[in-house]
Amino acid sequence: MKVFFLGTGAGVPAKARNVTSIALKLLDERRAIWLFDCGEATQHQILHTTIKPRRIEKVFITHLHGDHIYGLPGFLASRSHQGGKEKLTVYGPKGIQEYIEVSLSVSQTYLQYPLEIIEIDEGVVCCDDQFIVTAKKLDHGIPSFGYRVVEKDLPGTLMADQLIEDGVRPGPIFKRIKEGETITLEDGRIINPKDYVGPPQMGRIVTILGDTRFCSAAIELARNANLLVHEATFANGEEQLAHDYYHSTIAQAAAVAQQAGVEQLCLTHISSRYERSEWSQLEEQAKVDFPAVVLAEDFKEIDIPRK
Amino acid sequence: MKVFFLGTGAGVPAKARNVTSIALKLLDERRAIWLFDCGEATQHQILHTTIKPRRIEKVFITHLHGDHIYGLPGFLASRSHQGGKEKLTVYGPKGIQEYIEVSLSVSQTYLQYPLEIIEIDEGVVCCDDQFIVTAKKLDHGIPSFGYRVVEKDLPGTLMADQLIEDGVRPGPIFKRIKEGETITLEDGRIINPKDYVGPPQMGRIVTILGDTRFCSAAIELARNANLLVHEATFANGEEQLAHDYYHSTIAQAAAVAQQAGVEQLCLTHISSRYERSEWSQLEEQAKVDFPAVVLAEDFKEIDIPRK
Repeated sequence: MKVFFLGTGAGVPAKARNVTSIALKLLDERRAIWLFDCGEATQHQILHTTIKPRRIEKVFITHLHGDHIYGLPGFLASRSHQGGKEKLTVYGPKGIQEYIEVSLSVSQTYLQYPLEIIEIDEGVVCCDDQFIVTAKKLDHGIPSFGYRVVEKDLPGTLMADQLIEDGVRPGPIFKRIKEGETITLEDGRIINPKDYVGPPQMGRIVTILGDTRFCSAAIELARNANLLVHEATFANGEEQLAHDYYHSTIAQAAAVAQQAGVEQLCLTHISSRYERSEWSQLEEQAKVDFPAVVLAEDFKEIDIPRK
Repeated sequence: MKVFFLGTGAGVPAKARNVTSIALKLLDERRAIWLFDCGEATQHQILHTTIKPRRIEKVFITHLHGDHIYGLPGFLASRSHQGGKEKLTVYGPKGIQEYIEVSLSVSQTYLQYPLEIIEIDEGVVCCDDQFIVTAKKLDHGIPSFGYRVVEKDLPGTLMADQLIEDGVRPGPIFKRIKEGETITLEDGRIINPKDYVGPPQMGRIVTILGDTRFCSAAIELARNANLLVHEATFANGEEQLAHDYYHSTIAQAAAVAQQAGVEQLCLTHISSRYERSEWSQLEEQAKVDFPAVVLAEDFKEIDIPRK
């Protein structure tokens, strides 16, 4: 589970940072990648990575501002052009369906894969046996969502050596024990799974937020997350600007991370008003309030290891 | 008058060539730039040039395929974000208005300049005292237009020194002579403008075509042009593919140039199936039929000097 930044800028593309897109790489977990937002030229950024568009199975749109969606039609079309046949699902606020459908129909683009578009509201966005994704509205003037991706706990490791040592012969019975079934052997002995299965492996939590002011919904979404990706469009001292434009300062993002008790914070949506030489200062501003912080950069990857 | 290539690829962006956009630089003529097509990441390409988005006064869309229009909403939004206040006019086939309006409204993008969208048909697209632009439909499966940009002739140079030598005093009379008026001086002499004004300076003609098969409309649009920009999606030998996908081969583009009697041909919309090492071969293929040919590349500029 890795978070890979395809675009980390704010508002308009710049040479140093493209507009927003974030890939959640779930290659080990499900041979899939999920995309969060798709600003213009996201597909161009992907050309410089090992990401295969057909591996992208879900796209989550946080909000409909152009710097978060204008790369979507081109990405969808190119994924088809490059031979993608696998179904893709796009989740986003009301309006995303009209935008995609008009863009594709006006350009007479016919996708070679099934495209599902789901206009979301707060609550559970999607759920399967591995992950549950929930969304909440943030505070950005227009509907802007944050996504909390929760990996389900994995069952603990089966102590197969111990079972064999205790005279249990390998077979389908091992699977039943691992799944928690209490077994009575032919000799009358009772095998209690908790004696032979290690503790469950904790699932990981990644929270990726759309543009927002400081708000309690952000804290709720980020509660105990292994990684929180939070916008930080403005440096400290620009609270008024941040408020007026419905964005956050560095300190406000750090406060969310701190109050939510997250493990690591990554700041993104960095304005091009801050030059490369200032990036480390921005990171330092955040460290005052939350030491486990990193400033996103295009093509940066953050690993989220299993505990 | 210069033609500057922002994107010269076909279908999907590649590292070596972005999707289509061509800038006609009219900086000396009217301090303006016209754009022909606006594929995704055209605004990103512009970041690497001296082109100022607010100087772009007209955008001509040849056809609505995604690789020719998906950069339009982002370009329009960023032009506003970067302080552009000057009116912009977009010309394009029916459907361009819906695409632009939905993209801007869904993303709640409010432009700080007047945007005019004109859905075109064949004939005169726009005309002022400097230029006349006409369009014709090509052969591409969906409506695809070619544009013929004709610069109006400029009046010849006034031979002011000769007038002074002949005893005519400088003043408003000079302007009247330059504009072709026959003047009777106070001493009764008659000043015939053709004795004092050089031959008119021929306007230049640039023809920029959308995607197309070989067709007679292309030849008509390109008649006697100083520069013809023609697609060449396929190499010679791929006539069947070109036909099936409504595109042209190198030789077909060269035939249009030859039959139209153009001065120079530039081939663009080059498929990423042809690697950089093959580009010179493509140019050589064209030279067999039309020697004054050049293969477009991203960021290449072609000067069209006045005669």
